[in-house]
Amino acid sequence: MRLKKIKGAKELLESNNLFIKDCSSLRGNFKKEFQNSNPIHLEIGTGKGDFIINMARNFPDANFIGFEKYESVLCKAALKENSLSNLRFICEDATNIEEIFNKEIDTLYLNFSDPWPKKKHSKRRLTHEEFLKKYDIIFKEKNHIIMKTDNQKLFEFSVKSFNNYGYKIEELYLDLHSENIFNIETEYEKKFSAKGLKIFKIEITK
Amino acid sequence: MRLKKIKGAKELLESNNLFIKDCSSLRGNFKKEFQNSNPIHLEIGTGKGDFIINMARNFPDANFIGFEKYESVLCKAALKENSLSNLRFICEDATNIEEIFNKEIDTLYLNFSDPWPKKKHSKRRLTHEEFLKKYDIIFKEKNHIIMKTDNQKLFEFSVKSFNNYGYKIEELYLDLHSENIFNIETEYEKKFSAKGLKIFKIEITK
Repeated sequence: MRLKKIKGAKELLESNNLFIKDCSSLRGNFKKEFQNSNPIHLEIGTGKGDFIINMARNFPDANFIGFEKYESVLCKAALKENSLSNLRFICEDATNIEEIFNKEIDTLYLNFSDPWPKKKHSKRRLTHEEFLKKYDIIFKEKNHIIMKTDNQKLFEFSVKSFNNYGYKIEELYLDLHSENIFNIETEYEKKFSAKGLKIFKIEITK
Repeated sequence: MRLKKIKGAKELLESNNLFIKDCSSLRGNFKKEFQNSNPIHLEIGTGKGDFIINMARNFPDANFIGFEKYESVLCKAALKENSLSNLRFICEDATNIEEIFNKEIDTLYLNFSDPWPKKKHSKRRLTHEEFLKKYDIIFKEKNHIIMKTDNQKLFEFSVKSFNNYGYKIEELYLDLHSENIFNIETEYEKKFSAKGLKIFKIEITK
């Protein structure tokens, strides 16, 4: 997602109670930040926050981290929620995700990630093997990834990538919204689905 | 596929030069039937034969077997081709596939197989783990399966099943006909694709 720079985004984020400005002392110790040992769910590319905020509201016995690269985007999430004790926002690039978390994540959500359609950019896709290696470092015990996208090419690439990295497929949906299952939508998901696009979902463990 | 019984189907098949009536002496020795050591490609559920006949015509340096349960269907394939030296037809139930072939198949095609949509019938799906175990017996060296279907639920089930059985995904297409790749169509494929249905394809090895 790319947006115009929003003036005051940084200040807005820094004034939010849930925003973690400096993660450097928290690696391996995020449970201290939450002051409990509940499972930690991480969404990379949290965008304007609808998904992670709704998840945190629905599941008070789990902790949630909304991780987003762009201040100008994350500040929109910050405007929506400022006080949930089981939610935090981080504004960093996922390229160094293994330097931020260490054996402490229970579930990773990859929602409507940038498809990076050009082959020469494939390593930037969040489901590329290079990222899967990084995720091995951040998971607590069992790796658990839940991915949603409307992008067919990214989904094809991701299923291959997960499969060939040794993940077990728990669930696979080629038309998520035709299923009668619990689903919290992201902003993108609402938009794309309203256009009649199918939403793909895969849930995997290792 | 279910069709009305066609009178004379059995006789028609038995009069076809490519039809193998009794496979019992050929298990492990199909190369003798073809009188060469070229790779053997097997299609289970060959229907009216368009796919396997066109494959045999296009690839003279490989051998092809069209395997079909119903005489009334396979006789339509037999009407189309009677002399290709690299093609054979077999009319048997795939439930006992491991008793028919032994370490001699190079590539297995599962084209538009019966989806058996009810959960209680899932073991009948040709991509169920019970069938994958049987396929382990028929492959020569490396397992190599190419599956096509228009059925979303069968495809979701199959990708999970292949993944969790340890197959590597070589290719995965969620809209095969939008790709610029070599593709020989089956009768079903032409019909479904003309209706605007997307065709799914997966190619796997183990």
